[in-house]
Order: sequence, then structure tokens, then C-alpha cells
Amino acid sequence: MTGDSPEIASDSRDLTCYRCGANAAFPDRKRCDCGEPLWFDTDAAAEAFAWPDAGTGVSRYADLLPVETGGDSRTDGGVSAAAGSTPLVRASGLDADAGCRLWLKDESENPTGSFKDRGSAVGVAWAARAGREWVGTVSHGNMAMSVAANAAGVGGSGSPRALVLVPDDISEERLAAIAQYDPELVRVAGDYGRLYRETLDADAPVEFVNSDTPLRVAGQKTTALEICEAFAAETRTRTKRAPDAIVLPVSSGGHASATWKALRELRTAGLFAAADLPRLYFVQAAACDPIAAAYRDGNDSVMPADDAGDTVAYSIANADPPSGTRALAAARATDGAVLSVPDDEILDAKATLASEAGFCVEPASATTLAGIRRLADSGELDADDDVVAVLTGTGFRELDAGSATTETVALGDLSERLRALTA
Amino acid sequence: MTGDSPEIASDSRDLTCYRCGANAAFPDRKRCDCGEPLWFDTDAAAEAFAWPDAGTGVSRYADLLPVETGGDSRTDGGVSAAAGSTPLVRASGLDADAGCRLWLKDESENPTGSFKDRGSAVGVAWAARAGREWVGTVSHGNMAMSVAANAAGVGGSGSPRALVLVPDDISEERLAAIAQYDPELVRVAGDYGRLYRETLDADAPVEFVNSDTPLRVAGQKTTALEICEAFAAETRTRTKRAPDAIVLPVSSGGHASATWKALRELRTAGLFAAADLPRLYFVQAAACDPIAAAYRDGNDSVMPADDAGDTVAYSIANADPPSGTRALAAARATDGAVLSVPDDEILDAKATLASEAGFCVEPASATTLAGIRRLADSGELDADDDVVAVLTGTGFRELDAGSATTETVALGDLSERLRALTA
Repeated sequence: MTGDSPEIASDSRDLTCYRCGANAAFPDRKRCDCGEPLWFDTDAAAEAFAWPDAGTGVSRYADLLPVETGGDSRTDGGVSAAAGSTPLVRASGLDADAGCRLWLKDESENPTGSFKDRGSAVGVAWAARAGREWVGTVSHGNMAMSVAANAAGVGGSGSPRALVLVPDDISEERLAAIAQYDPELVRVAGDYGRLYRETLDADAPVEFVNSDTPLRVAGQKTTALEICEAFAAETRTRTKRAPDAIVLPVSSGGHASATWKALRELRTAGLFAAADLPRLYFVQAAACDPIAAAYRDGNDSVMPADDAGDTVAYSIANADPPSGTRALAAARATDGAVLSVPDDEILDAKATLASEAGFCVEPASATTLAGIRRLADSGELDADDDVVAVLTGTGFRELDAGSATTETVALGDLSERLRALTA
Repeated sequence: MTGDSPEIASDSRDLTCYRCGANAAFPDRKRCDCGEPLWFDTDAAAEAFAWPDAGTGVSRYADLLPVETGGDSRTDGGVSAAAGSTPLVRASGLDADAGCRLWLKDESENPTGSFKDRGSAVGVAWAARAGREWVGTVSHGNMAMSVAANAAGVGGSGSPRALVLVPDDISEERLAAIAQYDPELVRVAGDYGRLYRETLDADAPVEFVNSDTPLRVAGQKTTALEICEAFAAETRTRTKRAPDAIVLPVSSGGHASATWKALRELRTAGLFAAADLPRLYFVQAAACDPIAAAYRDGNDSVMPADDAGDTVAYSIANADPPSGTRALAAARATDGAVLSVPDDEILDAKATLASEAGFCVEPASATTLAGIRRLADSGELDADDDVVAVLTGTGFRELDAGSATTETVALGDLSERLRALTA
């Protein structure tokens, strides 16, 4: 196999544009002539799709993916085979706080601690099958670690190496977190925000699996496929076939688009009716909320935010989201919404998810609970709604020294102190 | 329910001693009169056990556990329901390095990033069912976070609160990592190593779920149950019914004991024959290796290490392991071994697991690969052996600023640089 003739380039699962319906050929194209991002056309595959009998991880949904990830199951393929199959749990202890029946989808339980591993697994698997020597990404956060780890994990001769383009002012801590997986790291001096388009146009033999490329969107569909399958399995005896709503942070719009795509495929498969379709709510940080702004203003497309500020939810601070307009369409088509929440509400939600539910998430993930609180307050969600918050990434990488106040007890006094404490 | 009459105190699944065969009643007893730790007697349950048709997480193996965790599946029970169901993947890219057919069981994909969640899920579920107001632990690391998170996640009125006893000199960073889950935190001044026994004897109404208590051992059996089930499913067409060896770090001996218990139960269930039983290898850091020392010296019981030094694998630096002798028995009974590895080999293995396999683990977890290398070098493992390394905990909480050297490229020069790089 060579980079010039990847064995799956002529696969019948080609690309289509959600907006204008045009088709295009992967891997040559990533965006449509109309300007919008393309995704894989899976109509035929979706029509034949049923919940699988076996398999775990991303490859469980191989019938809807453009490439096999690893072997038939997660027992081959290294770290890529360890992506996905994350838990969906009820968090009834937070129902009163959230104002609905809350479910948590814990994407921090992926090998590099975020949902990005699903897309990286598919992207790296495709690059390996296609004989590409390089798989690239423009990221200095979760996606960078994920692409680097997945490329490291493929192993074997001829497997792709990772190329990670980071901004010149990246912190040493973050650089080290990525570097441990031994990718080729290049700091780029200049407008880092422009790099997304630069890499689309690059004529180097690098398959860039950026935030909303068709390969990444394909892999990241599996978050929603798992949610719907687990929900269906657990509520077999009830009338609901799917959650009423899925809430996730939105940045580039890639994961949001993928979630929409998954729901469309399940409807095409006949696994649930249009009326069962969960509403999709996407949440941004108020300091950088171009998609929410377009939603509020009733616009059809998302304009770059020229006044974006800093936010604790740095993972989702994308002022010019390449799939923003597609995410906006997803929210509207499912009767959902796009909203934004201020940093103090994000931090409060983050603290609550740890202290009341036991999940340590990054601030971006906590926008979900902050958003759900607002949606419940406004009557958009009600107490009977089953609502899934997607906790996109771990908080373990940013544990700060805090201000926990604790008493000190001498060992000899401990028994007495415990009796008093628990009396 | 009150603490005085937990509904499951008279459950027929009582305790037994692996060494002398004596029985005792849970929860009153944790250790046998002979001095050894007790575990739940599951002979009858194991005889009737078959691989489950459904269910995920720890509760998949409810038939072998002393209490239901959450509901029937991980869709209820909050964070406790999110424990377990971690991936087992082949890491063929490391076979040459490891000297065997290497598999990785990634326990970092648990809600608080370590295998401890399995035991905490069972411990907290039991305490909740028994009406205990408090569930405690003596830990300032993974187990502390896990118990605190699992207690937070139970929710509902009457659920137990977590009591975490930490040493007085705990770092602020580590204290904050535990405190986020809002347990009752008590610093104890004095000999922290004595606390294990102190809490066994405490007459306060706190159910301590320490490293080798029967409840924790029960939950932590599920690591090995999952390994064996996944291996059996994936190798149906081959002659091997189980891996040839399982390798895990050993500290208190609780997880090691649990792994042995799981294998005994599967043999009792008839799911594999004695000849199929994997050999168990336990690895310590050379600076603190009382169990490995007893193995080397041919002793029948483990003596406290009075010369223990510091090690990068701080999570397993237990100089007086309460289940050390039981772990020693497990290694001998399965034709395995206990060995120790120096810090430089641990760090090298940690780097290799990231750069060559894509897994970021804590140093304690990397003792597995370091140990496997030594076992392969000595001929104890050979190239045809299927060997599972249990990666017990995440490395995300200790990402240091490193010394990654990278070039900086101006945006305008990027295309040219990429062509050169990938030529």
C-alpha cells in the first residue's frame, strides 16, 4: 500500500453534504463546494443496521464506520481498541439540582481521558489501512494527546506516525503531556487559528484528523450510538425508546455534528421513530460562544466571534468553529438549542459533579450541567425528561492545590474522635 | 435499617480463611484468628456460576458478590455503576520488547482512574444497604479518591458519607484531589502505618473499606473475571481458555488476593481446568519489596520491611502489607512468582507504555512491563505466552513539565516544512 492508492479510497461510502446534498470523494475532499463540512454518506449502511450482538468499543459499530478499527473487537488494535464503551449511568442524586432525570455519559473513561479517542481510533485506523505514513492534528489539548497516543498504539511496521502542530506559546506541562506519546511535535509561530484551513490545503502526505474531519466525525458518532443503545437496553420495559435530550459541550461542532449523524442513522435504521429523537442541546462558555450567538440571533450560519475572551472551559474556546453552522442546524432540526453559560456557573457545576456525583471532569464538561440547570429553569427541560449530559473529558490533568480545611488528630485520640464525629 | 442490624449481616455468604479454612461472620470480622485476612466464602455461588448474558461493570458479576451494586446494570447507582468493564487489548507492538504476547488491561479507564473503584463500588453499596452512615478508608492516594467519589455518587437520603484518614503531612495537591469529592477528611498525626490496625479495632460506626477488606477484595475480583471472560470470548477458536499469566503490581496484597480468588471461583465454576489456570506474577518496587523478599527467601510469611526506601512507585510502597502472605500464597499456588524491579526500569517501562503503546500510567502500573521484561529474560515467560499486564492506575495526575525539544516553524513556512518532514 502506498499513500497514492489507499485501498479504501474508492469505497462506496463516500462523502455527502448535510446542507446541499452534494457528494464528494474521500480522502481528497473534507469540505463541500458550498463551504460546509462533509461527512460520510452512510444511508445504505444505516438502512441495514441493527444493534450488534457482540463487540465492544468503537468497532462495535463497524457497520456504520468507514474503516475497521483494529480487529473485530477491542482485543486487537492496541489503544485504539480501548476507545469507547464508556458507561452511561443514572445520577439520581442530582435530579433535584438538574431539574430532570439526569444521566451521565462518562467520556473521561477513554484511554487518553476524553471522547477524542473515538475519532482518533477511526482516523488512525484509516491512515494505517491507507498506508499513510503520517496522521496529523492541530491541537494542544485533548485531541493532541489522543492522536499521538493512538498513533503510538497502532504498532507494527508501516503504521502512521503522529504529527502534532502546537502553538508556539504552549506551556511546558502541556507539551510534556503530549510528548510522552512521542509524536513529531512542531510549534507553529503565527495565527494558530488559521492552521485548520492551512492543514486542509497542505499538500504534504499527512492525513489530518482535525476536530470535524469526516473520519473524526465518524468515530465520534459512537458516543451517541452507545447512549441510545444503552438507554434502549435499560428501559426496555418503558415507553421511552431514547433519552428526551442529549446535552454536550460544543466547540468546533465536530462532536455535535457526529451526535446528530448518529441519531439520523438510528432513525434510518428504524431503531426509533422521528418522534423518539432526542433533542440536542449544545453548550458553550459565555466568553466564547459564536454558535450560541447565532442561535440567539436567529441566524442561519455561524460567524467567527471577534470579541472572544478567556474562559475556564478552554477546551471549547473556539472562536471560529468549522462545523459551527452544522451544529446549529443539528440543534434546530432536533428541536434543541444552543446556549452559553458563564464561568462561575461552569465552576459551580464542576464542583457539584465531583461532590454530589463522584465525577472529576474538566470545566468544558461541566458546561453540560450548568446548561441543564438553565434549560430546566426556563422550562425547556422538565422533571420527567431523561437527559444525558456528556462528560467529555477528565479533570485529572488539572488538579490544583486547593484550600481544603481539615482537622488534625493525634493517632492516640483517633478512636475518641471518630466516635464523636459519627455520633 | 440501622447500623446495628444491617439487612445482609446474616447473609449465607460468610467469611473464610484461605489458609486455615476457619469461618467467621461479616461484618464483625475482617481477619482470622490465625492472623490471616478473611474473604467471602463463595463456593456455592461459584459452583452455579456461568458467564453472564448481560450486564456491565462490577455488577455483571453480581452472582459472585456479597451485595448488589446499584441496580441490575451500570445504568443505575451513579459513579459506582461506572466502575469496571475496562478494556483488555492486545499490544502486539510491544511483544518484542516484552518477550511474550502482551495484553494490557487498562484499569485507568475507571471513574476515578484506578482499579480501586471496583472495590469501592462494592464497599459503598454494602454500606448503603446496611444502613451505615459512614464508609471509611486509610489512604491518601487512589483509594482515598475512589472511596470519596463512590460515597458522593450514591446519593439519596441515608446514603453513607465518606471518612478519609490521611497523614498529617499530605501535600496540598493531593488533599485537594480527594477533597473535591467532599468527604470528611481527617489528618492523623502519628504513625500512619499503624492506622490499618487501628481502624480494624475502631468501635466507631464506620465501615472501613481498606485495601484488603473482604468487601474490597470481592469488588476487585472483577478485574480478573473480566480478563478471563474477555480472553475466552476472543480466543474461542484457539486452544487456550485463559491467558498464560497475569502480572500486576502488589502493595497490600488485596488486589493480588482478589485475582487469585477470581481464578479459584472460575475453576470451581468449571469454566476452566486447573491446567488452564493463569500463573500469577506480582511485582514490587525494589526499594520496598517485603513480599518479593519473602518469595526470594523461600519464607512462608511476609515480614515487614524495616529498610524500605522511597520509590517512584509510591502507590505500592507498603512496607507492612496486610495481605502480603496471602499474595505470596497466590503466586506459589499458581506457579507464578513475586519479583521486584528498580526505579530506573519502572520509569523506562512507563515511558515505553506511553510512546510505544499509547497508555499513560502511573509508575506503579509500569512495574508490570518492567517485571515482564525480567521474567522473559530469565526464561520464566516465553514468546508464545499470552501475558496480561494490569495497568492499575492513570498517569494523568502526575504530568510533569518535561524536557520535550521541539522546533518552531513560522506559519508561512509550514507547508514547506511539512513536505520536508514527510519526504
